[in-house]
Amino acid sequence: MIPATTAAEDLAFGLIHVVGLPALTEAAGAPLSPDDIAAIVAEADRFAREKVAPGWQEADRHGAVYENGAVRTPPHYPALYRDWIAGGWQSLPAPAAVHGVAVGGQGLPGALWNAVQELVLAADTSFALGPLLTAGAIDLLCHHATPRQAAAWLPPMIAARWSGAMCLTEPQAGSDLGALRARAVTRGDGSYAVTGQKIFITWGEQDCSENTLYLVLARLPDAPAGTRGISLFGAPKFLPDGRRNGIRCGGIERKMGIHASPTCVMLFEEAEAELVGEPHRGLAAMFAMMNNARLAVGVQGVAHGARALALAEAYAAQRVQFGVPIARMPDVARMLAEMRATTLAGRLLALEASAAGDRARLLGDAAAAARLALLTPVVKAWCTERGVENASLGIQVHGGMGFVEDTGAAQVLRDARIAPIYEGTNGIQAIDLVSRKLARDEGAAMRALLAEARGLDARLDAALDGLARATEAMLAAQARDANEAQAGAAAYLDAAGWVLGGWMLARARAADAARYGALAEFYLRRLLPRAAARCAEAEEGRAVLALLAG
Amino acid sequence: MIPATTAAEDLAFGLIHVVGLPALTEAAGAPLSPDDIAAIVAEADRFAREKVAPGWQEADRHGAVYENGAVRTPPHYPALYRDWIAGGWQSLPAPAAVHGVAVGGQGLPGALWNAVQELVLAADTSFALGPLLTAGAIDLLCHHATPRQAAAWLPPMIAARWSGAMCLTEPQAGSDLGALRARAVTRGDGSYAVTGQKIFITWGEQDCSENTLYLVLARLPDAPAGTRGISLFGAPKFLPDGRRNGIRCGGIERKMGIHASPTCVMLFEEAEAELVGEPHRGLAAMFAMMNNARLAVGVQGVAHGARALALAEAYAAQRVQFGVPIARMPDVARMLAEMRATTLAGRLLALEASAAGDRARLLGDAAAAARLALLTPVVKAWCTERGVENASLGIQVHGGMGFVEDTGAAQVLRDARIAPIYEGTNGIQAIDLVSRKLARDEGAAMRALLAEARGLDARLDAALDGLARATEAMLAAQARDANEAQAGAAAYLDAAGWVLGGWMLARARAADAARYGALAEFYLRRLLPRAAARCAEAEEGRAVLALLAG
Repeated sequence: MIPATTAAEDLAFGLIHVVGLPALTEAAGAPLSPDDIAAIVAEADRFAREKVAPGWQEADRHGAVYENGAVRTPPHYPALYRDWIAGGWQSLPAPAAVHGVAVGGQGLPGALWNAVQELVLAADTSFALGPLLTAGAIDLLCHHATPRQAAAWLPPMIAARWSGAMCLTEPQAGSDLGALRARAVTRGDGSYAVTGQKIFITWGEQDCSENTLYLVLARLPDAPAGTRGISLFGAPKFLPDGRRNGIRCGGIERKMGIHASPTCVMLFEEAEAELVGEPHRGLAAMFAMMNNARLAVGVQGVAHGARALALAEAYAAQRVQFGVPIARMPDVARMLAEMRATTLAGRLLALEASAAGDRARLLGDAAAAARLALLTPVVKAWCTERGVENASLGIQVHGGMGFVEDTGAAQVLRDARIAPIYEGTNGIQAIDLVSRKLARDEGAAMRALLAEARGLDARLDAALDGLARATEAMLAAQARDANEAQAGAAAYLDAAGWVLGGWMLARARAADAARYGALAEFYLRRLLPRAAARCAEAEEGRAVLALLAG
Repeated sequence: MIPATTAAEDLAFGLIHVVGLPALTEAAGAPLSPDDIAAIVAEADRFAREKVAPGWQEADRHGAVYENGAVRTPPHYPALYRDWIAGGWQSLPAPAAVHGVAVGGQGLPGALWNAVQELVLAADTSFALGPLLTAGAIDLLCHHATPRQAAAWLPPMIAARWSGAMCLTEPQAGSDLGALRARAVTRGDGSYAVTGQKIFITWGEQDCSENTLYLVLARLPDAPAGTRGISLFGAPKFLPDGRRNGIRCGGIERKMGIHASPTCVMLFEEAEAELVGEPHRGLAAMFAMMNNARLAVGVQGVAHGARALALAEAYAAQRVQFGVPIARMPDVARMLAEMRATTLAGRLLALEASAAGDRARLLGDAAAAARLALLTPVVKAWCTERGVENASLGIQVHGGMGFVEDTGAAQVLRDARIAPIYEGTNGIQAIDLVSRKLARDEGAAMRALLAEARGLDARLDAALDGLARATEAMLAAQARDANEAQAGAAAYLDAAGWVLGGWMLARARAADAARYGALAEFYLRRLLPRAAARCAEAEEGRAVLALLAG
């Protein structure tokens, strides 16, 4: 049988033995021992299992409820949110000080936060999204807030008493943020009045946090058209004097999943706001934050696979047909192995990307920064595609019971389906990978990655060769016709995910063959061949253009 | 641009020009001209668009409602069901006479019925499932009813005044029907009393038909254990004298999708029933029917792809981002092309299988019967996998709006997700393909099929070579270790689907290159390489067994 390691065990193993967090933190002068890492992951696992997970189905059934501008989350969410505050979890990745101002963060590595997020997201995605969005807002403010803003906003956000909400999308401006219309005018006292309608605002209004800081994209009167004329503003729900700001929730969406996460229409009516960062440079600030958010969405894909796997393994162990638990049947074992292998591959790849971010930030390692930039779209898109696929396989393992809501298997798929869409659709990720991340250094970072991955396994080396050829083909296509490159981009990204997932499993096997050898072998034999099919598809971008032109 | 043929146009084209229904019916002595075929398809399309489709979202929101043993379907269903009766649709594939008794069918080909089903299923799957199950019951009774049973039951069922419900599954007996416990005892007058609990009974109780005939699997007192001791019984909801039979609905399931199709727990309490067919031979009778039902579920996968495609194409044509309709963007065009190509491939493959069934039945063609048996699991599993995948792609094309229930895109995925499960899970289909359909003639029918498909396209020929090698590998595995064959079976079936789908598109291109050439080229260049990956996976069944053995 596959050694049945838990997600928490795999995460601790990955952090310690695969991506080398102890050595990284030691080099950065703030060493975390393997025991420290394992203890934090185990504590997060306990929080997720004991506090968050028990209510996840009830949260789905109850959903978020809108009434007269207010949103009620499921009845147990406010107390659960207080537990989140009490545990100090929000402060884990935040810095201790910004601009010399103490803001209360623990300054722990992003890779460790990644592990905590996976566990909480798997326990209840709808709940976890609130703190996750707050973490993104904190991250942005750490880079772009003035000292006064940092002192006012960051301590309550890092304590999780205040939440953060990111307000980008408008009805006519989805992937195309340049089309946004919200506007800001100066109020003469250095502050601004923001007016406009934002949609798809996750946790935009709720009854858990005592205040919410909205980070809003809007145009100043003198703004150039398009994406270079967008500024970023911070506006609290309640102003420092206690008045309610001109920000209200106009409704929430009826969605396929994440029912308990309110997806809000937010109406800004001359809301008092402060400029964050430079005028007209708001999109750049937002995108810097979005890289973290994109990794976090990739982690959601891993979390959905992990939850689907846990449910499916438990069901398959106790459901008897033909005289044996169905887990013993080859085709069911095949599905469980596929879920386990791709979830682990995605988990380790997300840790690798986060650790690259830590190396870049803590050690000033420029190559690591390039590695992070390259891996981010792959983690976001490949892991969320696998999350949806694994949620679907999880239903299949349950047979008819998987389609019935009681088992939870269906909820995982309903919740998982958003992840390929938000924080930049997976199509946008693919275009980012090919048209920006590959093109900007003419493939250098990708070639370095492919070279580093060699020598662990002959089949992996062959797949790396194939991906190297596809990389050159994508660069040539990009140089020839950007549309051709875009038409092949999604398949190229998927190929990269399959190959790099194999690399991560080969590294896990190298670190502990008894524990991960059979699973790595399963992946390398059975799943890795998918990379070649995807490379072939990527190199045929012109077959798409022929249909468009035809 | 891709010529935007509708599903109805593709179906008529496929029937007339790809699978050759005019010649087939002429050979059978009941000729249907191309005009006849196109007219019937167009009429079904009008019925589906004008009567069925408008209420599909309201049906989902309302759902089926259980109260005190009764089930209310959505308010518009009873009138819609009367329209179904008035249109005479149920009689289309049924014979005119059985045992010399006129029963009211039109005796039209199964391939034509397949086309009608696809259009109605795409319009509202929940509604279409009722008539679809009735069609399965009619088919079974045409083969196994006594003349008296045929005279009593078939005319009202073929007129659709009575519905048919198939009662197989019990809580402990899903894929493993040998474990079922429902029992039947003789009542001394030639009839039986059936007692037991059945679950997952589609349209088991509803407010549309005036009566329902339940076809129930149960054990006689002297029955051998396992699958060879199961008998089939017919029991009407209302007995000929108007009394209510001992059959009641104990509840309905809360499901991910097909909300308006009641999935019932049915309780049989000494229900008066008649034996259908021979004692202890009920499973064989049921399985004969299930082949048709399995094809019909494959058609559901096609229908879900078609509905997803229609919604996505309409959205992408009007949603403007970056100054153009998103349909013009290469990655969106890629998704739409993939949906269109795989849906058409599945549609034509389902027609090919149905036409083989017609050739077998009308012309007594034994090779066609073997072809039907071979294709049935491929159509059921491959088309429903594509249905789920295309529903998911359809959501992706919509971006954030796809996750919001209002667009309908999410409903397609929620509805589609059951199809890989019921009428034999796709894992069961794969095992049927490898362990029965391949093994029973040592691959002869498959080799004949692969030989027939050659010569249309060089890339297709190469893929046929790969599938031929995988076929020999599966036969060798089956001879060596049935578990090894089962571990590779799902991947083998999927490979066969990709290759045969390419064959169908190559035939469509050969019939009309202007209409289908670019789409076939897209499939052969970009999607067909997936077959090789699946063949590689199929041949590595031992990597699964290694995990089981550990």
